[in-house]
Amino acid sequence: MEQPQTYPPFDFIIFGATGDLTIRKLIPALFYRYLDKQIPAETRIIGAARSALNDNDFRERARAGLNQFVQESDRDQEKIEAFIQQVHYVSLDGANANSNWSDLQNLLNGDKGNKIRIFYFATAPRLYGDICDNLSDKGLLTETTRVVLEKPIGTSLETAQEINRRVGKHLPENHIFRIDHYLGKETVQNIIALRFANPVFERLWNSDSIDYIQITAAETVGVGSRGGYYDGAGALRDMVQNHLLQVLCMVAMDPPISLNADDLRNEKLKVLRSLKPMTDEDIRTNTVRGQYQEGNKNGEKIPSYLEDLKKDSSDTETFIAIKAQINTARWSGVPFYLRTGKRMAEKTSEIVIQFKSSTWSLFPTSPEPNRLHIRIQPDEGVSLSLQVKDPSKSHTSLRSTFIDIDFSPTFHIRYPDSYEGLLMDAVRGDPLLFIRCDEVEAAWRWIEPILNGWSKGLTPMAKYKSGTWGPNEATELLAKDGHLWHEDMP
Amino acid sequence: MEQPQTYPPFDFIIFGATGDLTIRKLIPALFYRYLDKQIPAETRIIGAARSALNDNDFRERARAGLNQFVQESDRDQEKIEAFIQQVHYVSLDGANANSNWSDLQNLLNGDKGNKIRIFYFATAPRLYGDICDNLSDKGLLTETTRVVLEKPIGTSLETAQEINRRVGKHLPENHIFRIDHYLGKETVQNIIALRFANPVFERLWNSDSIDYIQITAAETVGVGSRGGYYDGAGALRDMVQNHLLQVLCMVAMDPPISLNADDLRNEKLKVLRSLKPMTDEDIRTNTVRGQYQEGNKNGEKIPSYLEDLKKDSSDTETFIAIKAQINTARWSGVPFYLRTGKRMAEKTSEIVIQFKSSTWSLFPTSPEPNRLHIRIQPDEGVSLSLQVKDPSKSHTSLRSTFIDIDFSPTFHIRYPDSYEGLLMDAVRGDPLLFIRCDEVEAAWRWIEPILNGWSKGLTPMAKYKSGTWGPNEATELLAKDGHLWHEDMP
Repeated sequence: MEQPQTYPPFDFIIFGATGDLTIRKLIPALFYRYLDKQIPAETRIIGAARSALNDNDFRERARAGLNQFVQESDRDQEKIEAFIQQVHYVSLDGANANSNWSDLQNLLNGDKGNKIRIFYFATAPRLYGDICDNLSDKGLLTETTRVVLEKPIGTSLETAQEINRRVGKHLPENHIFRIDHYLGKETVQNIIALRFANPVFERLWNSDSIDYIQITAAETVGVGSRGGYYDGAGALRDMVQNHLLQVLCMVAMDPPISLNADDLRNEKLKVLRSLKPMTDEDIRTNTVRGQYQEGNKNGEKIPSYLEDLKKDSSDTETFIAIKAQINTARWSGVPFYLRTGKRMAEKTSEIVIQFKSSTWSLFPTSPEPNRLHIRIQPDEGVSLSLQVKDPSKSHTSLRSTFIDIDFSPTFHIRYPDSYEGLLMDAVRGDPLLFIRCDEVEAAWRWIEPILNGWSKGLTPMAKYKSGTWGPNEATELLAKDGHLWHEDMP
Repeated sequence: MEQPQTYPPFDFIIFGATGDLTIRKLIPALFYRYLDKQIPAETRIIGAARSALNDNDFRERARAGLNQFVQESDRDQEKIEAFIQQVHYVSLDGANANSNWSDLQNLLNGDKGNKIRIFYFATAPRLYGDICDNLSDKGLLTETTRVVLEKPIGTSLETAQEINRRVGKHLPENHIFRIDHYLGKETVQNIIALRFANPVFERLWNSDSIDYIQITAAETVGVGSRGGYYDGAGALRDMVQNHLLQVLCMVAMDPPISLNADDLRNEKLKVLRSLKPMTDEDIRTNTVRGQYQEGNKNGEKIPSYLEDLKKDSSDTETFIAIKAQINTARWSGVPFYLRTGKRMAEKTSEIVIQFKSSTWSLFPTSPEPNRLHIRIQPDEGVSLSLQVKDPSKSHTSLRSTFIDIDFSPTFHIRYPDSYEGLLMDAVRGDPLLFIRCDEVEAAWRWIEPILNGWSKGLTPMAKYKSGTWGPNEATELLAKDGHLWHEDMP
């Protein structure tokens, strides 16, 4: 980052430190912040987990992670070693009051209570309440303590409320950082700039000009080693309740009165509260769920979800498509199509704003409607499709093209991983890009009836071949409205 | 052109055939159409001028012109020779009834009067009436005859009306093709597609969203060998009365009800008739005229206008900037700044649509307003400036960038010279991109008071150094409104 902010030393304690997230995302993100001189020497990164490791064991894991997940060009071994010296480990079951808390207490008790202290919860969410109780009982919650809560915040409205209640008992809301790494993505944040710093877009950003909106988060991978967790969750809980609804909020919210965290989150909350509740009939007609089947890639067989799980049957969706509607002055009548899935044709997160076409045409052929394409990842960028005169043809021949920008090559910059910015936001105490308790609950309020409807059997499980854009039912969901998914658009 | 239209054989007679335009533009344009198989073997291109040349002399000039003005990769000598065999010459003073008309009569009398016949007038415009009288008297105007009139159509409203009246005596209006090669430019025609096939633009195309509009046609060359003509004309007559006002019409017109020639020209006429008439006070404050002075390029001296002319003094402008206003519902309050000049810093023809900025800003800094940049030449293309999140900075830092398309590399196509399309339009009898008599006269009606005001001394002649963007007065013209020329924009 060109203008690194300076940070005071802090303690960053990760519960669930032996998990995948810590090694794959958190430690590499902190290392990149270290390279940019945002991790002062007195800062400690303290892994906590039940495994009986010592500092050296954990450092070895961290080192291996850095050598795997940091870009090769950034792997300066001297810097890695210096950074690793700031990494520590305590063997501790945070959810157990009787575990050995003294190592952590000893490590942290040296400070006078004014060093910034971040507890990062990368454990199962049902443990968040217990961990907080214990942190409180052991005297580890200071006035400068913030907790970062990984998703999912619960598996239902009730469990989310329970987590919010139990964590909230010990910490004020503005010290509770519910992380959604989609909000850490530069291009998701860019929606704010695109919309509110470009009057040409904001003037068009409503049902007068917009026909429909698509938000897609497609992965090519399967469930991998997360099958155990995933099969209990499914795509709706794992991706839609948090990431896709957050992106929806950024796209659909009214202008906040300021970029103060609560002003922004008030507007996002309004969107979540304006989502048209899903009736049984809506669930039947406006949701599609699917599970990936065997596929082929370059002649090699790709296993099905059940094969990945090593189970005979599962009622868990790995794909979902939803037609959502927002009951506001701005959006009434504009469908928002949300879609996410595993083992899809391409890895892409994107927003497609399809503008209305004119019912009048000056040209012999009807012009294609304009389309704004916001690429969240990969290839972060923005393009606007246009109709222009076909230079090789008559005065009245049109041709589709687009004006485009690809951010990374244009700005000559590495796009930081979304965790990098978010972790430092938590250190700085800026909750702008974190989810407030009422947002989480409003999202569950809209999601829960869908889960319930599905368990009543309102929506059959569709099947889709691995490596495709999902089941036919997803295409039909849009076809009913005369609409197309992005990959099918001309 | 990918889909060449086929054309019947035609006779294309050029009066003023020994002039620069014929050799530099018309013959090369027809040769390119020949390469695309639009010039059947029975087609004849007949040069007519006073010089006592024979076919071979003129073919030699044409050959030399093709070898100079056709792209090297397109100079197939065999094809050039085959094409040249279709070129003929008659020694004839078209304005003189007593000249030797028999050669032309003999050449043309062979047909039964139904072969398409184009008379292209590339002479001094004051001769157009006489030539038409003679063509009529000599029995050369058939029902399939069209005349193409080069600019300038007159030097004042009265002389324009006189030309229209005298030519119109012999030919119906839809056989009179007043050519303006700016309308032949692909990117000028593209304005129609950009505006009327892209609802996102048309929704923004009015005084609600647009702050001001600039139309610039800047040349780097001086008057060159055209000094004799130019010193009697000046930039206002040479460039603004025709080219710039035509571009203005394309940018400002309301949607035509069809792309029928008269429907389009009706809308252009409305714009010309809605131009706010220039009072003496307007001329004083809203027009700038300038004359280029000595300059330097790469250490070498560039001569002044007077040195180019070899005269001691001249009251002719080689630069003009005008603030024009259009009294329509769509445009009231939006200034249109027109600018053209010789010996300017860059060769460029462009339209800049500056959108209004919001008076409200969510960001610590006021975002730059959006800007649509239509590049007519060179580098035909379109770009839209945008504000995006600066990826290297905080959540609220903006950065200016743009989404862009460069037509020629994108479409893998040579952009044809504007004469190519227009000549074939005349052969086909399609007047869509030609100027109707009432348009010419409406343009003069707006221009003439400026000429008169200048001759009364309302606007002093400003001086500008060759190789710059014109006199300071042009910058001040916009500064009074708080506006900037494109090259000064951030």
